[in-house]
Amino acid sequence: MQTAGDLSGLEVGYDVPALPGMTEADIQTPCLIVDLDALERNIIKMGRQAREMGVRHRVHGKMHKSVDIAKLQATLGGAAGVCCQKVSEAEAFVRGGIQDVLITNQVRDPLKIDRMARIPRLGARIICCVDDPENIEDLSRAAMRHGTTIECLVEIDCGGGRCGVSTSAEVVRLARAIAAAPGLQFTGLQAYHGTMQHLVSHAERKARIDTAVVIVRDAVDALASNHLACEIVGGGGTGSYEFEGCSGVYNEIQCGSYAFMDADYGRILDENGNRLDDGGFENALFLLTSVMSHVKPGRAVCDAGLKVQSVDSGLPVVFGRDRLVYDTCSDEHGEIDDPDGVLKVNDKLRLVPGHCDPTCNLHDWYVGVRNGKVECIWPVSARGKAF
Amino acid sequence: MQTAGDLSGLEVGYDVPALPGMTEADIQTPCLIVDLDALERNIIKMGRQAREMGVRHRVHGKMHKSVDIAKLQATLGGAAGVCCQKVSEAEAFVRGGIQDVLITNQVRDPLKIDRMARIPRLGARIICCVDDPENIEDLSRAAMRHGTTIECLVEIDCGGGRCGVSTSAEVVRLARAIAAAPGLQFTGLQAYHGTMQHLVSHAERKARIDTAVVIVRDAVDALASNHLACEIVGGGGTGSYEFEGCSGVYNEIQCGSYAFMDADYGRILDENGNRLDDGGFENALFLLTSVMSHVKPGRAVCDAGLKVQSVDSGLPVVFGRDRLVYDTCSDEHGEIDDPDGVLKVNDKLRLVPGHCDPTCNLHDWYVGVRNGKVECIWPVSARGKAF
Repeated sequence: MQTAGDLSGLEVGYDVPALPGMTEADIQTPCLIVDLDALERNIIKMGRQAREMGVRHRVHGKMHKSVDIAKLQATLGGAAGVCCQKVSEAEAFVRGGIQDVLITNQVRDPLKIDRMARIPRLGARIICCVDDPENIEDLSRAAMRHGTTIECLVEIDCGGGRCGVSTSAEVVRLARAIAAAPGLQFTGLQAYHGTMQHLVSHAERKARIDTAVVIVRDAVDALASNHLACEIVGGGGTGSYEFEGCSGVYNEIQCGSYAFMDADYGRILDENGNRLDDGGFENALFLLTSVMSHVKPGRAVCDAGLKVQSVDSGLPVVFGRDRLVYDTCSDEHGEIDDPDGVLKVNDKLRLVPGHCDPTCNLHDWYVGVRNGKVECIWPVSARGKAF
Repeated sequence: MQTAGDLSGLEVGYDVPALPGMTEADIQTPCLIVDLDALERNIIKMGRQAREMGVRHRVHGKMHKSVDIAKLQATLGGAAGVCCQKVSEAEAFVRGGIQDVLITNQVRDPLKIDRMARIPRLGARIICCVDDPENIEDLSRAAMRHGTTIECLVEIDCGGGRCGVSTSAEVVRLARAIAAAPGLQFTGLQAYHGTMQHLVSHAERKARIDTAVVIVRDAVDALASNHLACEIVGGGGTGSYEFEGCSGVYNEIQCGSYAFMDADYGRILDENGNRLDDGGFENALFLLTSVMSHVKPGRAVCDAGLKVQSVDSGLPVVFGRDRLVYDTCSDEHGEIDDPDGVLKVNDKLRLVPGHCDPTCNLHDWYVGVRNGKVECIWPVSARGKAF
């Protein structure tokens, strides 16, 4: 198990929520804890599924932003590389030793392009997405300036409706321009459908990706007709990877949330109508919180509010405690309905965050726990790396 | 103007969004920028109002979490001290030189109590809230252990319905126990009504605080009958301070958001039916974002999503651009309706965040701008200090 490097001088309760060797009861809250057994099982399971489907798994590091977890996904799950969303995030992963990074996003600002063009000098492969011909000249000039190669995926909008071009003709036009530009390499297609990932119905999710696959297959064929081969056809998330993985067109899936899971992904259903957190992937990430006021009967107040979690996808769920409902969230407090009055001040609860990605980005550390003990603390290496 | 100390070695686009002296156009996005003129006007205005009402202003540092801004609130606005919500946050302010800090919250965890009890040794006054007699013995023991004094406010629930006791009899019982406990000092009442702050109607807000004032006055009178004087009767926020300030009962107001404002506070109305951001306080905080994809007619994609802002109180508003609507937010992207097609890639926009407090807590730096230039960068000193 990796550790966070030098932890000396870090104060528990100010710099860090815990240190290795402490018991779980002594962890300072609110903080993120990771059930290491569950995390490892999730990573191994997804790695096996990708292998069985015959696709590579480029894990999405935008979710956990952790070099340590990315390395665990490589060693235990056979991950083929890392995705992220920002140049500064890519730099954090590369500085931490990750050598194959795809920025699943456009990079347009001149300084960002310049920084990205320098990444190969740190010993890593860098890939980004392109959806506008005007971007290509800027990328090319920066790569030439630094004597490096920037690999480019053309982003195709396969249903998400955000970035990406819409037709195979545009894909071919961009791919040709990339292939012809000095310092750039055309590496394939980015075809991620984001908005369908959280649809509860398995059949609905499948239908959306079936449509996406038709679009992507047409683009791949059009590229092939123009002698442009795709080394990477990438996409897929925790709510859809099985569809892209079995499509015969995609060759890289890009799942992130599966490693930790969250309350929102937990609610989506598999083909048998089971929740994804019931037999699919386990909750491995928890927001540990303590009760800090309980003066009203049936209502407890805990120390985890908006500053330690994102509630964009709903409020957190109290893990393993069906009668306790976290129903109100303010800046630094959560209010918990405790109808049986079982909670006492300083009781600790594990909350399953509504949405893992933006919640992780609020924290500096993951506290890895196993058998009631703190085994490791991992920095959220790319926390706040939004540039 | 304070600066952030030693900025050498910080890389623009990785560590920091900008450095002093840069032009606004070169700031790396997404990041928080502060209009220094507007901030100073807000601080001066609130300072004058508090003076006119004859109350002290203990500024709420939980909003900005910045030592530099807290000091500006003292020098320009006559602030009497700082409020915050967590022990680690108090430590960050005290380490930065703030000498009078009220934690407007209960402190119950043994390690947190111990850390708090040590704060006076750093040269600062520390005050916390109490709503449970069981807390008093723990606080007293810690203060005795460190040879310090912890000042305590009894928290009374004056309508917010979260923490705090509900009756004057309970207030008196707690105050007596505090006054009798070695190492503790009874300093007064905490009576903050949080849930009414964002009600749009001025009359509704006033009615809630009128009710709160009756409750607080009764408690103050009951304490006086028991020879327990309140040095501090504190409460009030940006949505209500005028009512507490003129009540004749409160002597400290605790506003935070007024200094920056946000979209949600901007919408509440004053007694004349004007928005609070129109003649009340100015928007001084902006989330600066850049357009990074614009392949669909009428829709632009910018680089500011959930990881750089909290959307719990609604989406951000595009400042000064009425025809542009930020209508969709995902992890790293915002989608902007641009019906006239005026936006171009790399155009920068100022967003007014929906809710300033949890948005500020996502960032490491404030970029202070004046006349189109970066004048200073201030660390968000207590960012992530949630313990």
